Amino acid sequence: MNDASARYQTGLDYLAMIEGQRPPSLEANLKDIAPDLARLAIEFAYGEVYPRRHLDLRQRQLATAGALAALGHARPQLKFHLGGALNVGCTPEELVELAIHMTVYAGFPAAINTAMVLKELFEERGIALVCDAGMTPRNPDQTRYEQGWEGLKDIDGNAGERVISALQDISPDLGRYIIEFAFGDVYSRSSMDLPSRELVTVAALTALGTAFAQLKVHMHGFLNVGGTKDQLIEIITHTAVYAGFPAAINGALAAKEVMAEREQHHAVP
Amino acid sequence: MNDASARYQTGLDYLAMIEGQRPPSLEANLKDIAPDLARLAIEFAYGEVYPRRHLDLRQRQLATAGALAALGHARPQLKFHLGGALNVGCTPEELVELAIHMTVYAGFPAAINTAMVLKELFEERGIALVCDAGMTPRNPDQTRYEQGWEGLKDIDGNAGERVISALQDISPDLGRYIIEFAFGDVYSRSSMDLPSRELVTVAALTALGTAFAQLKVHMHGFLNVGGTKDQLIEIITHTAVYAGFPAAINGALAAKEVMAEREQHHAVP
Amino acid sequence: MNDASARYQTGLDYLAMIEGQRPPSLEANLKDIAPDLARLAIEFAYGEVYPRRHLDLRQRQLATAGALAALGHARPQLKFHLGGALNVGCTPEELVELAIHMTVYAGFPAAINTAMVLKELFEERGIALVCDAGMTPRNPDQTRYEQGWEGLKDIDGNAGERVISALQDISPDLGRYIIEFAFGDVYSRSSMDLPSRELVTVAALTALGTAFAQLKVHMHGFLNVGGTKDQLIEIITHTAVYAGFPAAINGALAAKEVMAEREQHHAVP
Repeated sequence: MNDASARYQTGLDYLAMIEGQRPPSLEANLKDIAPDLARLAIEFAYGEVYPRRHLDLRQRQLATAGALAALGHARPQLKFHLGGALNVGCTPEELVELAIHMTVYAGFPAAINTAMVLKELFEERGIALVCDAGMTPRNPDQTRYEQGWEGLKDIDGNAGERVISALQDISPDLGRYIIEFAFGDVYSRSSMDLPSRELVTVAALTALGTAFAQLKVHMHGFLNVGGTKDQLIEIITHTAVYAGFPAAINGALAAKEVMAEREQHHAVP
Repeated sequence: MNDASARYQTGLDYLAMIEGQRPPSLEANLKDIAPDLARLAIEFAYGEVYPRRHLDLRQRQLATAGALAALGHARPQLKFHLGGALNVGCTPEELVELAIHMTVYAGFPAAINTAMVLKELFEERGIALVCDAGMTPRNPDQTRYEQGWEGLKDIDGNAGERVISALQDISPDLGRYIIEFAFGDVYSRSSMDLPSRELVTVAALTALGTAFAQLKVHMHGFLNVGGTKDQLIEIITHTAVYAGFPAAINGALAAKEVMAEREQHHAVP
Repeated sequence: MNDASARYQTGLDYLAMIEGQRPPSLEANLKDIAPDLARLAIEFAYGEVYPRRHLDLRQRQLATAGALAALGHARPQLKFHLGGALNVGCTPEELVELAIHMTVYAGFPAAINTAMVLKELFEERGIALVCDAGMTPRNPDQTRYEQGWEGLKDIDGNAGERVISALQDISPDLGRYIIEFAFGDVYSRSSMDLPSRELVTVAALTALGTAFAQLKVHMHGFLNVGGTKDQLIEIITHTAVYAGFPAAINGALAAKEVMAEREQHHAVP
């Protein structure tokens, strides 16, 4: 779309859905210093990327929050977009779970800082949180290891099993923690569905740009739990807005390898 | 230079040019906690790296600001060095454009946070910004795509075209956004010249350390728009101060590959 | 260990040793927003990782502080764990030296920000710092270059020499600065012993995830100055808590290559 003015109008509409107000605070914040930056954000991010197909606004906000929580350097934007997530239908419980999910991919400090942003946000909005749902294990009869191992196999499939196996002769305990903590304790929680978990993971690892192999594992994971190729590409395209184009390009190249691996696998008789 | 005291005196002179005052605030800030850290910064960063040839102080401050804006974790230093950029001759418009340029390589949040730091800085210094210059497209007769594609070819050359082509069968829209947004909307703006854009890009990607292939593309870009090999090496050396030696070493190894590729290319009859 | 309640009790004990108080502030901070996140941190990080063998609490806090100082996005946690480091026996001088050490691996801004966190912490605790110990060079009769070169050879061995050699035809000055600044100025300081320096370096580079080759160099370095394989693996496992599992997995794979290189080297007659 080459009509900047039409993109700008569309962008205003989308930004209003995210922010829940109009005119957008972005223009007020930047008007004395970089009005063109506000214009480009509205034209490109909100006018061109957000209206695209394959991900709805709820999914886009989860991807945005996952990317910014993992990067950790953009607290004001993380708060803005967690608020936006509430505005487009994410539940408070789901966002708390997103913070907890971050422990696995960006560590406890990133998770705790995300939770503290949510605390501020929920207080401002008068949201009283009752969060016991997440503690319900998917299957109470299994041990933590059994539950984790089953989860890892179901979600990440062969790609995940290969990670554990590669760790076996150097750091078997790290492999065990991935099974017991990441999959047994975290993924087994019911407060976020698996496609959303893998969507958040793909966005976070694309944004971080430091774990190409694990990004591929979770792209497989996203597809294994019901995500589509179109959605996968869309998560990556969306992440360009929040982490820049080099991160997105590397994400796309990872997706290319993942799709080739899946095609090859299916071609085997 | 092994005479620490001479390096220290030289460092004080350079730091005074950057900060615009003497004695430096760095010594006051660190004197009760880590005076040796202040001394090493003055001896090494300001006494040994800043006086080097091939980049002037204006270019060094653009490289510093690009690196810190991309990393996003050092707001006080980003503000200090954007102020330093003004002190050594960068214009307010150029620094706003640096923030806008960051959208492409580190995402909109990093760009917006850099703009907010500039807002604080300009308010403190009473700088009233009139920033419409950047909106002038280099060639108003071209579509956004045409302008972007021409820019990408002129700047990044074959290396850039290969990126777009590699994305073709996995995410053609991401490739199109690189052309339309990154090159059509951003690079086409007249408020920052192309060598400065690529200098900032090389510094930012060297500091981030997450996009080796794209770093190489923009090293080619820097050389294609008139940068020299000596300047390229100097950007990397300078970045060691702000992102550490491992980042700089990887930058130097990328430059080595880039120079080899260019030599091979020219050797072909 | 599958008994979550036993892990939780152990975690409370370990967290009390780090924080120096009980009940932990973590539970109070998160109780209204993400109590499960606090529970998982206590069960997994403090109840499962901290009680492991091979690293004592002092070493764990150095690793934590190194990882968080390098990442730069978690100031509250960096302050908490620097305070924890004091509580388990690290000296103020050692922590200041950790900040100075960061110049080499994460740049001066990360180092300065760590020093400013220490300043706040020491003021709160009434710690008056006298920090001249670090200025004592290990051998005052050597030039900076000689001292640096000897340090680099002793610590990083062949792996370090290969880095300098790889830089020779692209950026010899960067190689010289590694010798003169990193090893001559910083590593030669007596306020932190070499195994601790390399422990901090391995934790920082594992957390950053952007410098695989340099991470391997410093894993060799850690083993060369007396660290054991078990300790090395433990640093990586510990870092999973602070930077996430993908960073730790890549650290473990780097360790695997390092161990294979050392075995091959020793197998040569």
